[in-house]
Amino acid sequence: MDGEANKAVRGYGENRRTGTCGLALRLLALALTLAAAVVLGVDKQTKTVPVQVSPALPALNVPVTAKWRYLSAFVYFVVANAIACGYSALSLLLLLANKAGKSRTLASAVAILDIIMVALLFSGCGAATAVGVLGREGNSHVQWGKVCNVFDKFCDRVAVAIGLSLFGSLAFVLMGGLAVMA
Amino acid sequence: MDGEANKAVRGYGENRRTGTCGLALRLLALALTLAAAVVLGVDKQTKTVPVQVSPALPALNVPVTAKWRYLSAFVYFVVANAIACGYSALSLLLLLANKAGKSRTLASAVAILDIIMVALLFSGCGAATAVGVLGREGNSHVQWGKVCNVFDKFCDRVAVAIGLSLFGSLAFVLMGGLAVMA
Repeated sequence: MDGEANKAVRGYGENRRTGTCGLALRLLALALTLAAAVVLGVDKQTKTVPVQVSPALPALNVPVTAKWRYLSAFVYFVVANAIACGYSALSLLLLLANKAGKSRTLASAVAILDIIMVALLFSGCGAATAVGVLGREGNSHVQWGKVCNVFDKFCDRVAVAIGLSLFGSLAFVLMGGLAVMA
Repeated sequence: MDGEANKAVRGYGENRRTGTCGLALRLLALALTLAAAVVLGVDKQTKTVPVQVSPALPALNVPVTAKWRYLSAFVYFVVANAIACGYSALSLLLLLANKAGKSRTLASAVAILDIIMVALLFSGCGAATAVGVLGREGNSHVQWGKVCNVFDKFCDRVAVAIGLSLFGSLAFVLMGGLAVMA
C-alpha cells in the first residue's frame, strides 16, 4: 500500500512538472507561431526596377512589389503558422480547464495533435526555406535568377519569420517529448 | 492483488500490441524512406534543348540534364530520407533486441527520436514540394520559368519520391501517436 501511495505521489508530481513545463512551452509556441505568421503576413517591399522593354528604347523605371501572397510556399507557411497558433491557444484553454488531469483522453489527443503540428510547421519551414534559398542564391541550372539582391528587406524578414517558426516548431517537438516521457 | 495482476496483464497486452504494430510501422517507414531516397537519388533526365546564342544565328541543340544534385532542396530531401531510413533500421534492431520491454529509457529515446524524424522528413517533403511546384508551374512574379514541361519524366519521379516520403513520414507520426497512447 505504501509503495502504491508513493507511486501515486510520484505520478502526480511528474504530471505537475510536465504540466507546468508543457503549459509554458505551449504559451511560447503560441507566441512564436503568431509572430512568424504576422512577420511574413505583413512583409511587403516595393522597389523601382529598370525594365528594358526594347533594346532601342531606354530602360523604364517600374515599381515592383514583393509580397508573401505571390509565392505558394509562403502562403502555406503563413497558413501553417496561423493554424498552429490557433491550435496552441485552444489546447492551452482545454488543458487549463482540465488542470486536475482527470481526462487521459484529452491529454492523449493533445499529444497526438502536437505531433501533427510538428509535421505541419516543419513542412511549412522547409517550403519557405527552399524558396528563400532560391531567392537569395538563384539556381543557374533551371535559370531562376536571385531576387533578394533587389528585395533585400523582404528577404531578411522572411528569414526572421522562418527563424521564429523554427523555434515554435521546436517547442512542439519538446512538448511531444514531454508527453512521451510522462 | 487481483487488480494489480489484471493491470499488469493489461499493461503487457497493450505493450505487445503497441510493440507489434510499432515494429510493422517501423519496417514500413524503413521501406518507404529508402524507396523515396532511391527514386530521387537515381532520378536523371537528359533532353536536347534548342538554345539561342545570338538572334542572328540559328538555335543550337544542346543536351541538358536534370539531376537531383542541382537543387539544394532535393539534396536535403534525399539526405533526410537516408537518415530516417538508417535510423529506422537501427531502432528496429534495438527494439527487437529489447523485445521484453525491459528498458524504458530505450523506449523513451526511440519515441523522442521518432518525433525528430517527423520534423526532419516533413521539412524535406516541404522543401522538395515547394521546388517541385515552382518547377511545374513557374512563378511570373519572380520570373522563374517552369521546367517540368521539358523535364516531364524527372518531375514525375520527383512527385513519386515525395509521395513515398510522405507516407513514410505518416508512419513516423503514427509511431509517435502509439508512443503517446501507450
